[in-house]
Amino acid sequence: MTEPQHPFDSAIALTDQQGSYHGHTSAHYGNMVGPFGGITAATLLQAVLQHPLRLGDPVSLTVNFAAPIADGPFIINARPARTNRSTQHWLIELSQQEQIAATATAVFAVRRETWSATELECPAAPPAETLEAFPRGRGLPAWTNSYELRFVEGGFSALSGAQSNARDDSSSSLQWVRDEPPRPLDFPALAAICDIFFPRIFVRRKQFVPAGTVSLTIYFHADQTALFTQGDQPVLGHARALRYNAGYFDQVAEIWSTNGELLATTSQIVYFKG
Amino acid sequence: MTEPQHPFDSAIALTDQQGSYHGHTSAHYGNMVGPFGGITAATLLQAVLQHPLRLGDPVSLTVNFAAPIADGPFIINARPARTNRSTQHWLIELSQQEQIAATATAVFAVRRETWSATELECPAAPPAETLEAFPRGRGLPAWTNSYELRFVEGGFSALSGAQSNARDDSSSSLQWVRDEPPRPLDFPALAAICDIFFPRIFVRRKQFVPAGTVSLTIYFHADQTALFTQGDQPVLGHARALRYNAGYFDQVAEIWSTNGELLATTSQIVYFKG
Repeated sequence: MTEPQHPFDSAIALTDQQGSYHGHTSAHYGNMVGPFGGITAATLLQAVLQHPLRLGDPVSLTVNFAAPIADGPFIINARPARTNRSTQHWLIELSQQEQIAATATAVFAVRRETWSATELECPAAPPAETLEAFPRGRGLPAWTNSYELRFVEGGFSALSGAQSNARDDSSSSLQWVRDEPPRPLDFPALAAICDIFFPRIFVRRKQFVPAGTVSLTIYFHADQTALFTQGDQPVLGHARALRYNAGYFDQVAEIWSTNGELLATTSQIVYFKG
Repeated sequence: MTEPQHPFDSAIALTDQQGSYHGHTSAHYGNMVGPFGGITAATLLQAVLQHPLRLGDPVSLTVNFAAPIADGPFIINARPARTNRSTQHWLIELSQQEQIAATATAVFAVRRETWSATELECPAAPPAETLEAFPRGRGLPAWTNSYELRFVEGGFSALSGAQSNARDDSSSSLQWVRDEPPRPLDFPALAAICDIFFPRIFVRRKQFVPAGTVSLTIYFHADQTALFTQGDQPVLGHARALRYNAGYFDQVAEIWSTNGELLATTSQIVYFKG
């Protein structure tokens, strides 16, 4: 008997047809309109990861959400724009009905041991298992059921019934996250988790506001050893907004391993209404 | 008599030849190898700004420095990947000798008044005119002479003779910046200033280390009014690194107006050796 495939792996699965990758949106990762942005980011990264010309591991990924992605099939084209000795630059496009719905660029590199240091301090947080899991299935989009979220601060209470402890002048959220069901962390899963945070304006204004990410950037600090060490334990995510103005706000966030290693840093700019 | 053109405007000047933009590197913005990354970012943005199909103002820009740019001519191709009612997504490539040397994506939008707030606090700094200007022309690359820098903290002392007041465990720099000679702020100038900070590893390790930005992302909060209000006064930049690991570190930074308005937030991932 074979294990049934994890829904995450099914969601990012791509088949190569004459140099284009064909995929399909997954009901497990549905958002209010189209798929959860994190699963799109993971799928675009996956296109490079499984490409025969790929060199090394991901260093950075920027995804631009150009239009809503409709539930159904899509095509991804990925091409190396430039390959150097140890770095490689990629251009990636996701299309539906011959229209571009998302674009991305990625930098991959063969990484080597160097001097290292982490300047940012890992925020203090009680262990995940001591915190209540965010209630699932209460009218929130499907993708939230594909994660287990445990909030230290800045939960979003409007629909969930969970207690909000966000300050009135802050959108900061600190939360444990893991795939549900649990799944060992890899680069696509880490990319998806970088988009796990509810739009900061929900937390700040304590209400739903129409909002959607237009551009997402991820810097990968984790190497294969860090991912292996992490396994399927929860990671700690910390997100906050910097400025909301004229229809857009930016969010910065960090993803820390269970034992306090900085795995990824990420930023995004988000459209909002009202 | 006409005013001579500001060196910044000459550096980002592009001429349209059958749908491709032709430009040339500028000696005023030379770096150790090729041009200052900020001037490349500004030039890629300029290609969209002067494009006949352009909609609205810049919201985000990601530039990937795929290979060193040689001193000399280059060609930029910019195309709208998707145009919606109020947003537009761009793909931009810079080539030399028919090889891609830089790629970029940009989001432009027609922005509207909305609820607004700034969560990040503007760092306290003495007025620019009370601080000594960073000494120019001491063996530093040409581009540093095209800016006036006044450090509040985290200056880089190795070559300049200026006093370093960076802490040993921090790469944080807080500095006033303006174009030299002064020039009213606009979107390309703001994009360039987002890359003004010396590589954080110079500040942290108090020494030169081979280093180069591989990917730079900018979120624009400023609108035309904010730019007009700023004029040619110095802006306040605050930069720091989060993690250095396996040949790459990330830097986050904010650019504040003279009167404390958040104009842009930016991040980059930088290759380093040793």
